[in-house]
Amino acid sequence: MTAAGARADAAPLVDGARLWDDLMALAQFTDPGRPYTRRSFSRHYAEGRAWLAARMRAAGLEVRLDAAGNLIGRRSGRSGNARTLMLGSHSDSVPDGGRFDGPAGVIAALEVARALGERRIDLAHALEVVDFLAEEPSDFGVSCIGSRAMVGALDDDMLARSGPRGDRLGAAIDRAGGRVARIAEARRDDVAAFLELHIEQGPVLEARGIDFGVVTAIVGIARIEIELAGEAAHAGTTTMALRRDAAAAGAEAIVWVRERARALAVLGEGHFVATVGVAEVLPGAANVVPRTMRIVVDARSERRALMDPFVRELKTEVERIAARERVTVARFAVVSDSEPAACDAGLRAVLDASVKRRGHSAIAMASGAGHDAAFLARVAPMAMLFVPCRGGRSHCPEEWAEPAALAAGAEVLLDAVRRIDAGGTAA
Amino acid sequence: MTAAGARADAAPLVDGARLWDDLMALAQFTDPGRPYTRRSFSRHYAEGRAWLAARMRAAGLEVRLDAAGNLIGRRSGRSGNARTLMLGSHSDSVPDGGRFDGPAGVIAALEVARALGERRIDLAHALEVVDFLAEEPSDFGVSCIGSRAMVGALDDDMLARSGPRGDRLGAAIDRAGGRVARIAEARRDDVAAFLELHIEQGPVLEARGIDFGVVTAIVGIARIEIELAGEAAHAGTTTMALRRDAAAAGAEAIVWVRERARALAVLGEGHFVATVGVAEVLPGAANVVPRTMRIVVDARSERRALMDPFVRELKTEVERIAARERVTVARFAVVSDSEPAACDAGLRAVLDASVKRRGHSAIAMASGAGHDAAFLARVAPMAMLFVPCRGGRSHCPEEWAEPAALAAGAEVLLDAVRRIDAGGTAA
Repeated sequence: MTAAGARADAAPLVDGARLWDDLMALAQFTDPGRPYTRRSFSRHYAEGRAWLAARMRAAGLEVRLDAAGNLIGRRSGRSGNARTLMLGSHSDSVPDGGRFDGPAGVIAALEVARALGERRIDLAHALEVVDFLAEEPSDFGVSCIGSRAMVGALDDDMLARSGPRGDRLGAAIDRAGGRVARIAEARRDDVAAFLELHIEQGPVLEARGIDFGVVTAIVGIARIEIELAGEAAHAGTTTMALRRDAAAAGAEAIVWVRERARALAVLGEGHFVATVGVAEVLPGAANVVPRTMRIVVDARSERRALMDPFVRELKTEVERIAARERVTVARFAVVSDSEPAACDAGLRAVLDASVKRRGHSAIAMASGAGHDAAFLARVAPMAMLFVPCRGGRSHCPEEWAEPAALAAGAEVLLDAVRRIDAGGTAA
Repeated sequence: MTAAGARADAAPLVDGARLWDDLMALAQFTDPGRPYTRRSFSRHYAEGRAWLAARMRAAGLEVRLDAAGNLIGRRSGRSGNARTLMLGSHSDSVPDGGRFDGPAGVIAALEVARALGERRIDLAHALEVVDFLAEEPSDFGVSCIGSRAMVGALDDDMLARSGPRGDRLGAAIDRAGGRVARIAEARRDDVAAFLELHIEQGPVLEARGIDFGVVTAIVGIARIEIELAGEAAHAGTTTMALRRDAAAAGAEAIVWVRERARALAVLGEGHFVATVGVAEVLPGAANVVPRTMRIVVDARSERRALMDPFVRELKTEVERIAARERVTVARFAVVSDSEPAACDAGLRAVLDASVKRRGHSAIAMASGAGHDAAFLARVAPMAMLFVPCRGGRSHCPEEWAEPAALAAGAEVLLDAVRRIDAGGTAA
């Protein structure tokens, strides 16, 4: 996979080699025996961020940690009271993760700031490069910690959650350089626009040979836990007619989820996927008719108009299966249900135009994964640019994006930043 | 549930209260904190068998442990060289088991011997009451240890298997009173007929209000392990069309197994059941499209003509699902496949006649569970009599059979023994 060749008249705007070298350098901060693992609040994470802060300073940025522990490199604007153009992502990883999910967006933002500095391009707006604290699910059961705090969505309940060593999230943020006592100060109302570059984490761009995805919305995610309860029975002596087999009923529900999601996905009304990734059968012995099956449905859509009927139909269908198979629906619980976050139409148009200007192709696509940008959308216009990744793989050491694609992405960002700054939109 | 009222002219042949008291006394030999648990080779098992041997001696039987550790109480026959009528079952239990699975058949056999003795009824045949060693799956991964040995089916490989404490099955049999060095001596060629009374362990007799089941055959059991392999993928970013979801494919297989088994069960060509009791999804995270699903199919039938096509069709269907869903069949292994054991037609007719003579009702039915009788069938005509059990429940502390039903069962056995001895069949 390569980024489609830039037009001959589109001279390079950023130093792609430097961008790549920084990405690979950041990747060295990992649990040594377990590349690539840089969990939030770990020693390797802190060391990586110290390196990142030094790179920001070397780029001439003014570096600080805000009260929520977000690492911010700032470049002043020409006009003293213009608002801030914010670029960024996160430098933490999942266990056994990759080198791109998060860092690609942080380093691309840094490269934009460097390119602006080297070309002595002053913007009217201030520009900030942000490494949000702890985007991936943390040891405290909270994700997107820094971006939540920036929009006032990190509540006391979350701050009080305990980690595996018994400490509280609040204390961990303080240790990471934040000041939880003054966390409200991390809240922002000065952001004119937020842009995040990220690898797609899916196979669509590569499969279709497209250079970029301009994100329409970040999906809302509904998690539904279902437990079907039948009756354990002897697998030899209990005739088929007399069984109350929870697993056979649960299997029907799994098949229904896939079929319904397929039907919704091809409607053309927006991104829809649903997955049963957890299925547990009890007692789980070959010679016992299953007593219970627990499944977890993960459904994601950019539109409530798809999600809401899906969850209702799922409930109806599970009840129908249960009644027919003489099992009971011991649990049907929507355990979480986040709202989709729409990307700003004006910023999407800017990104589309910048992609075109740089001679690349793009399609509109939803983000099926959550991102810091979903929280930033609460306080600012937001948009995202997706770069293809090999085989759609992510959250694994094999995660890979092409150097040329990342450089091209940084150039699109740079072009877009200049247009926005010049009043193209949202300024 | 009660055994249907015996006809007024059918005077009691056995002491039902004594039978019941013995059953409850044997049940007291259990792990104290875990009634009813009397695992083979445990201390409580040995103590229970010592008590049982004493009860056999009190009944006037000549008691011995054979080379395989089977506990045998013998009553000589009138004619010195007549062969042996053998009755019995097993006194070991599963963990957290019940009081009837096994012991009901041993104590009923003992009661038959006692009733013959008290009525001074001499038989031409010798009569043996047998407590087979270790019928339930033992710590050594072998079941029906004593009955296997009696028919020469306990091989050196099995005897060499290690238990949880590192000892070999052979050594455990020696500790239980056997003499493994001379295990061939346990082999029998003198059995004229073997009868085993057992609780049904299923719900059919109770549901239909029938007093007894006269077993047609003990099912053969096929175990098939199937692993479907797809590709782990992000549950949000991987579109429905691009997935290779192992669990959705596996769920289709589970539903197919149930549907096909239902169709075979209602054909009327013999007992057929199939169960998926094990289903494991990896990696098992809500936000990851499953990479693999492993299922274990347990299929049981009294007829190869049902089993063989089922296993073939299962393979074809799994391959069809896999091809359609773009997953691979990483494993399709028939890990065990035991032959069904037919009950002897002559002995079944004797049991039917005895049931009728005692004023009870019976139906012909297959045994969906394995029994010592399946091994005895290799060296002698064999038949089984099933007594109803409450709710079909077995292998649990709630396992229950009515005292009157057990007494009636012992009377049927006694009547049948006298008919067989008199030359009704198989003598």
